[in-house]
Amino acid sequence: MKVEYINPFVASTRSVFATMLGCELTRGTPFSKEDRHPQHEVSGIIGLSGKARGTVVLSLERSVALAATAVLLGEHPKDINADVVDTVGELTNMIAGGAKAKLEELEMTVSLPSVITGKSHTVDFPSQAVGIGIPFESEWGALLVEVGLVEQQTEVPVAVVAAVS
Amino acid sequence: MKVEYINPFVASTRSVFATMLGCELTRGTPFSKEDRHPQHEVSGIIGLSGKARGTVVLSLERSVALAATAVLLGEHPKDINADVVDTVGELTNMIAGGAKAKLEELEMTVSLPSVITGKSHTVDFPSQAVGIGIPFESEWGALLVEVGLVEQQTEVPVAVVAAVS
Repeated sequence: MKVEYINPFVASTRSVFATMLGCELTRGTPFSKEDRHPQHEVSGIIGLSGKARGTVVLSLERSVALAATAVLLGEHPKDINADVVDTVGELTNMIAGGAKAKLEELEMTVSLPSVITGKSHTVDFPSQAVGIGIPFESEWGALLVEVGLVEQQTEVPVAVVAAVS
Repeated sequence: MKVEYINPFVASTRSVFATMLGCELTRGTPFSKEDRHPQHEVSGIIGLSGKARGTVVLSLERSVALAATAVLLGEHPKDINADVVDTVGELTNMIAGGAKAKLEELEMTVSLPSVITGKSHTVDFPSQAVGIGIPFESEWGALLVEVGLVEQQTEVPVAVVAAVS
């Protein structure tokens, strides 16, 4: 994945957290997502398609998901409920939407977000997509943005190729 | 979500399992995905966007994911590894692609799949999307296809509306 595709997601994540939640983020060192490792407890996932196809994952510590819900909806859930799901889905949607606008040459549209909950769940991309993980710290706890993007001309459905070769 | 949007996903799931895996599926009773409930251990997720935005989840018992990998790639993994991730991602991709072709009036494109692993993980859609779950049984174990689709004119970013009202 091209490095210049990463910055729009970093900028969009910072901007969404700052403007929607009043929460400043400190970025850690990005890493290539080659090893399978568990996410934080709540992950929003959204698809991108157009001249590139991809996935964006916003993975939040439970404390971050609950604090964001409190700010955005004025609710103070003790547990992960439908309000938290809506909040995490909408943050994921806004981060992907903001990055997509900055990558207009790829003419991408975003899908509906879905939200995964579960201790030590793992999110993997197929081997055709080398994902990049971007860790952040906030006053509420840690979060992680993962992006996997494949330009259409390089897209090869791996399993199908293996099945017919 | 319109009922006529469900049948293409049922037909596509059956067709992909029959033609790619030689595995006949028995469909159970579809249900409205209002309650949060755990998925099977391995879930492929893919986004759809166009005149409708949506998400398709293919959730497989571990035994189904491993057996499918054996048939498709000729590998016999004991654990969920990169081959299993590729297999589940590609099955999800093919099911979404097949259904999309049958729903051509919605002019949808598919994103890249991602694959979630984790015992008792939960996949939720935002409250704007009422999802439908379609359980299936196979000789290898149980699987579940979940579809949430929102037509663009009815799309309302719930959290944003709540935040500004």
